[in-house]
Amino acid sequence: MHYQHLTESCLAAAVGDGGLSEESFTRSLMAAAPAHDRLCQLVESGKLPALGVAAGMDDLAPLRAMAEDWRRRLRDVVVLGIGGSSLGGQCVTALSDRGFGPAGDGPRLHFLDNVDPHTQAALLGAVDLKRTGVIAISKSGGTAETMAQALCVLPALAAAVGRKNMPAHAVAITEPKPSPLKSLAERHGLPCLDHDPGIGGRFSVLSLVGMLPAMIAGLDAAAVRRGAHDTLRATVDAARVEDSAPATGAAIAVALLHERRITQNVLLTYNDRLATFGLWYRQLWAESLGKDGTGMTPIRAMGAADHHSQLQLYLAGPRDKSFTIVMPETARQGPVMAADEARAVGADSLAGHAYGDLLDAAARATAATLTRHGRPVRRLVIDTVDEATLGALFMHFMLETIIAADLLGVNAFDQPAVEEGKVLTRDYLAKSAS
Amino acid sequence: MHYQHLTESCLAAAVGDGGLSEESFTRSLMAAAPAHDRLCQLVESGKLPALGVAAGMDDLAPLRAMAEDWRRRLRDVVVLGIGGSSLGGQCVTALSDRGFGPAGDGPRLHFLDNVDPHTQAALLGAVDLKRTGVIAISKSGGTAETMAQALCVLPALAAAVGRKNMPAHAVAITEPKPSPLKSLAERHGLPCLDHDPGIGGRFSVLSLVGMLPAMIAGLDAAAVRRGAHDTLRATVDAARVEDSAPATGAAIAVALLHERRITQNVLLTYNDRLATFGLWYRQLWAESLGKDGTGMTPIRAMGAADHHSQLQLYLAGPRDKSFTIVMPETARQGPVMAADEARAVGADSLAGHAYGDLLDAAARATAATLTRHGRPVRRLVIDTVDEATLGALFMHFMLETIIAADLLGVNAFDQPAVEEGKVLTRDYLAKSAS
Repeated sequence: MHYQHLTESCLAAAVGDGGLSEESFTRSLMAAAPAHDRLCQLVESGKLPALGVAAGMDDLAPLRAMAEDWRRRLRDVVVLGIGGSSLGGQCVTALSDRGFGPAGDGPRLHFLDNVDPHTQAALLGAVDLKRTGVIAISKSGGTAETMAQALCVLPALAAAVGRKNMPAHAVAITEPKPSPLKSLAERHGLPCLDHDPGIGGRFSVLSLVGMLPAMIAGLDAAAVRRGAHDTLRATVDAARVEDSAPATGAAIAVALLHERRITQNVLLTYNDRLATFGLWYRQLWAESLGKDGTGMTPIRAMGAADHHSQLQLYLAGPRDKSFTIVMPETARQGPVMAADEARAVGADSLAGHAYGDLLDAAARATAATLTRHGRPVRRLVIDTVDEATLGALFMHFMLETIIAADLLGVNAFDQPAVEEGKVLTRDYLAKSAS
Repeated sequence: MHYQHLTESCLAAAVGDGGLSEESFTRSLMAAAPAHDRLCQLVESGKLPALGVAAGMDDLAPLRAMAEDWRRRLRDVVVLGIGGSSLGGQCVTALSDRGFGPAGDGPRLHFLDNVDPHTQAALLGAVDLKRTGVIAISKSGGTAETMAQALCVLPALAAAVGRKNMPAHAVAITEPKPSPLKSLAERHGLPCLDHDPGIGGRFSVLSLVGMLPAMIAGLDAAAVRRGAHDTLRATVDAARVEDSAPATGAAIAVALLHERRITQNVLLTYNDRLATFGLWYRQLWAESLGKDGTGMTPIRAMGAADHHSQLQLYLAGPRDKSFTIVMPETARQGPVMAADEARAVGADSLAGHAYGDLLDAAARATAATLTRHGRPVRRLVIDTVDEATLGALFMHFMLETIIAADLLGVNAFDQPAVEEGKVLTRDYLAKSAS
């Protein structure tokens, strides 16, 4: 077990009027039971490959040699893609993010995730293309932003490394069907890795979309999947719905929406390596539930910075938010602050403490303060920040989101409203001089 | 004029029931007039140094030599601080962010903005302290996170460069009064730059808190202030309240809250260099307004990534959001996508277009689609992303926030609710073994 899901501070018994009544919680849990069963049936019958992919490792084995080769040979790897094709990889590779610059161990990964010409110029000016790899990711193979990135980067790469060397420098991940990305990959001689058409962007992190960048970053992709699979099994094997952490989480969120008009769900993480996880969750929750006039607004918050930015609003603003806190596991970690120096300057409370004690105490204080102010809080307790924990968190939130969608009566897997903007973008492009 | 503020798509005439009625808009503008006058009086009488600081350059001149020396001599500069002491600097220096690694022109800037022991270890492992500078920033001089950062980093720096060289490697920015940071700076022989006690963290970007990092990043700090000052003068000199863009913006936001229950304000930017601006705005709006049970939730969104992450919710979820879009100025920028290749692979809509055309078209399509779906949208049109524009945007949103607070009847400048968490953090630290 890589995480513990503690939800008692969401109940009125703990937080008063801001929390959920016992009746409402029970009713929502009862509604979640059949939703949970439906989900389990889909899982067991293999109809949710986004989750089922966690059980297998066969697709990872053939990529090991490539990942090792890229790690040895390349200095930079640029991942082309946007949204669900980018966030999962960003999120996993944050585990090995150097933050402060090259450490000489494998290539640096860069995720474009936009089509800003300034960034494009900075990228091509900063990397040595002869020592650069490119992964182009688009489920449909027709995503406009990813195609624009690829149409600019691949010709530049080909010019630098030579056409015959392109297979050693670039790879595409996309559905097997014909598409612009597939055609472009073929023109440039790139290998194409098949993406399962049954796995949508925001649910794709456990597929190669997330796992290939992880392997190139030197991470243990199999451990991510094992962590995810363990959580999936624990959920499917739950004897009662209240033993299913994702079902309980979904039941609470939906009941808080209906009973208390809690329309905003804050995911508050503390470890810097989980900063991107909040962005991944934000897409999952928003795009899966936000339809038919319903849905909830996911908010990604980061401690301790947001204690100084958002906490005033969270504590004293409108009562429209619930909080999921991924507690940091940093107690006793890091350098110790010299007691004599801390006392000499009047920072007595820090004297002799490890650096990580402060983050731990600040997170616990925030959870307690939110509770005292009647704001529903649940805590996810993790014992380490690693591949298996991240896998468990991915699976927890995918399951919770699917169950919440069922409770809200919406389809978790589509995103019909965004099509109009895509069509209009093409119209505007056609109207502007090219 | 560095920006244009277009608000017609917030009105019911443009977006139907989702927008503001003419009566409600007029009423709110009338209420904003005296709020705007009060603000102008405070400005003219010198009682808002956070804004007034934009008029002067005297404090910048003595720092030029230091900034040039640091740029020549150092490879990394670490900024210690959290929240308002960090975000302003992050935001300005994003203008010169290399994104993809060292370009050899001046030091890289790193903002800690947290107390994660893993990051701390990565920092000390990655930089050469002999070629590293440190700026420690805390208004009060007692911020726990900043003190923890300083208690860990300064001794390590002193060990690497030698005590007598500390003044050439580190500087503190804090109020003149005695404080832990001031004492620690004195112990290590650091120069202290005075911070005006009348300038709170989230309003401090135009002070040295934002300007010193800007200068060390090689940016034109004076141009940031000039851009801000021009916007301040344009507002103060506005003949009628409707000629004041910040007053109009505040009037619309507050009226949408009261008339349409629009509780969430999305700031959507497109240029990667404005990604951090959204985080700065998020603190300003949340912490200034979120009190006494009122306030609105600021949401920072980034195009084009969030088209693939949040737009489904924005278009088809609950009608609880308004949108402020900083339109990208990227049309005709960047490399041109070869028409023959684009057509050959079936990406016809991109053929012959500049890379930046797509971001421009996507932003315009999103603004139009949100409007069609009855969501209130205003647009900020900028002609370039540079120091002056950023200064104008800082000033616009500070003025708008102060006027909105007046309209809501709350104090824009305090943050009383966060004190409890700080006290509890100290309690928890005291209770845990050190």
